Amino acid sequence: MIFLILNSSGEYMVVYLVGAGPGDPELITLKAVNALKEADVVLYDKLANDEILKYAENAKLIYVGKQAGKHYKKQDEINEILIKEAKENETVVRLKGGDPFVFGRGGEEMLALFKEGMDFKLIPGVTSAIGVPTTIGLPVTHRGVATSFTLVTGHEDPAKKEKQVKWDFTADTIVILMGIGNLAENTAEIMKHKDPDTPVCVIENGTMENQRIITGTLENITEKNINPPALVVIGHVVNVFKEINHE
Amino acid sequence: MIFLILNSSGEYMVVYLVGAGPGDPELITLKAVNALKEADVVLYDKLANDEILKYAENAKLIYVGKQAGKHYKKQDEINEILIKEAKENETVVRLKGGDPFVFGRGGEEMLALFKEGMDFKLIPGVTSAIGVPTTIGLPVTHRGVATSFTLVTGHEDPAKKEKQVKWDFTADTIVILMGIGNLAENTAEIMKHKDPDTPVCVIENGTMENQRIITGTLENITEKNINPPALVVIGHVVNVFKEINHE
Repeated sequence: MIFLILNSSGEYMVVYLVGAGPGDPELITLKAVNALKEADVVLYDKLANDEILKYAENAKLIYVGKQAGKHYKKQDEINEILIKEAKENETVVRLKGGDPFVFGRGGEEMLALFKEGMDFKLIPGVTSAIGVPTTIGLPVTHRGVATSFTLVTGHEDPAKKEKQVKWDFTADTIVILMGIGNLAENTAEIMKHKDPDTPVCVIENGTMENQRIITGTLENITEKNINPPALVVIGHVVNVFKEINHE
Repeated sequence: MIFLILNSSGEYMVVYLVGAGPGDPELITLKAVNALKEADVVLYDKLANDEILKYAENAKLIYVGKQAGKHYKKQDEINEILIKEAKENETVVRLKGGDPFVFGRGGEEMLALFKEGMDFKLIPGVTSAIGVPTTIGLPVTHRGVATSFTLVTGHEDPAKKEKQVKWDFTADTIVILMGIGNLAENTAEIMKHKDPDTPVCVIENGTMENQRIITGTLENITEKNINPPALVVIGHVVNVFKEINHE
């Protein structure tokens, strides 16, 4: 069964939830570029690199991300704008950094569209959690070293009464996204389960020109000068990166 | 300091370790397409979709993956071919499904190139572990449901005396790659730590025309008819997929 969903002008409409990749505008997929080219409207968050918007040649661009010092849009408000634009246009792209479903709240937007009976398509992206370590030569899995890895957000919803993340992960590699603000607290928790000497690699502004790499251990990484946005990789796979960099 | 590495003809050479994405030829990055276009030689494994090789317009294609009933190349042999080709050509692409460092043994190939003093560049890809669930509308993370997820291989090196994977993962979502052969054994292990009713979604041939989706629980998924290659997603995020599919 195929539904044809029509917008308010009676035209077939579709919303693409699209991953923009980790930052480098060449690390976007062909499918994402094609969706951006086709788009009448693009709703975008704070991206690692706004240059990605160049592919949206004919689109109205609507920024829905955070803005320093200003009221920023709550998820409900973003969902409302998304639905309004979908009703008035043929092709709407909702663009998110990385992959739309890796800590991107894309699932909530998908459900909001679903509840309105709107047609949507999902276009995955290279998540920075994997793409950034890969680009610098840090394999998140490596034979004999890591057969599993866990991705986790370091920035849980502050509104939550009880924290959901317990930090008792047993995977060989742990990658923390948005992990700088609470790094001291979270590494202390991880050290209850992993050796304090476990190597850590922090990558600021991954895949970008101002990328910066800092290495250390679970015990001493918080003594280093680190600025967000940055990705935190924990585990013996960091030694592979150190080997190729003569560290 | 910049090294210029020259091949046997005195030309600058580079090896790209490239992720091909999950299968759909449009889910490859622009950077990967550009590397393939530039390539003189492409070494490739069994890919989900050979159509991706069309981007390698001018390259000699060398298959180094498994072949049914034939001796298949060991990692050392692949490393040797890679180094030999890098010595004789300007631009060599080593193409792998998904991301080169997610259970792709890319780390070993990178170290082999490093030990030979060869120049290499890493191009990440959309790993099927995330890209396939995203494409079908199954978010691996979801607010209030999953703030962490673990990727693990279901197919550990059979040569290992002691299994490294313990299956006691505490992350909210578990994604198993190459997980069908040992699914009964591995779900039994996972049920020691997670509720047998935990929902499971298996995606055969993800992002391809012959994609097939099977849902169940940790307890009953092995009773279903499942054929590799397939990805296994375990966790309450599967309910989001079920919701949009009226299951």
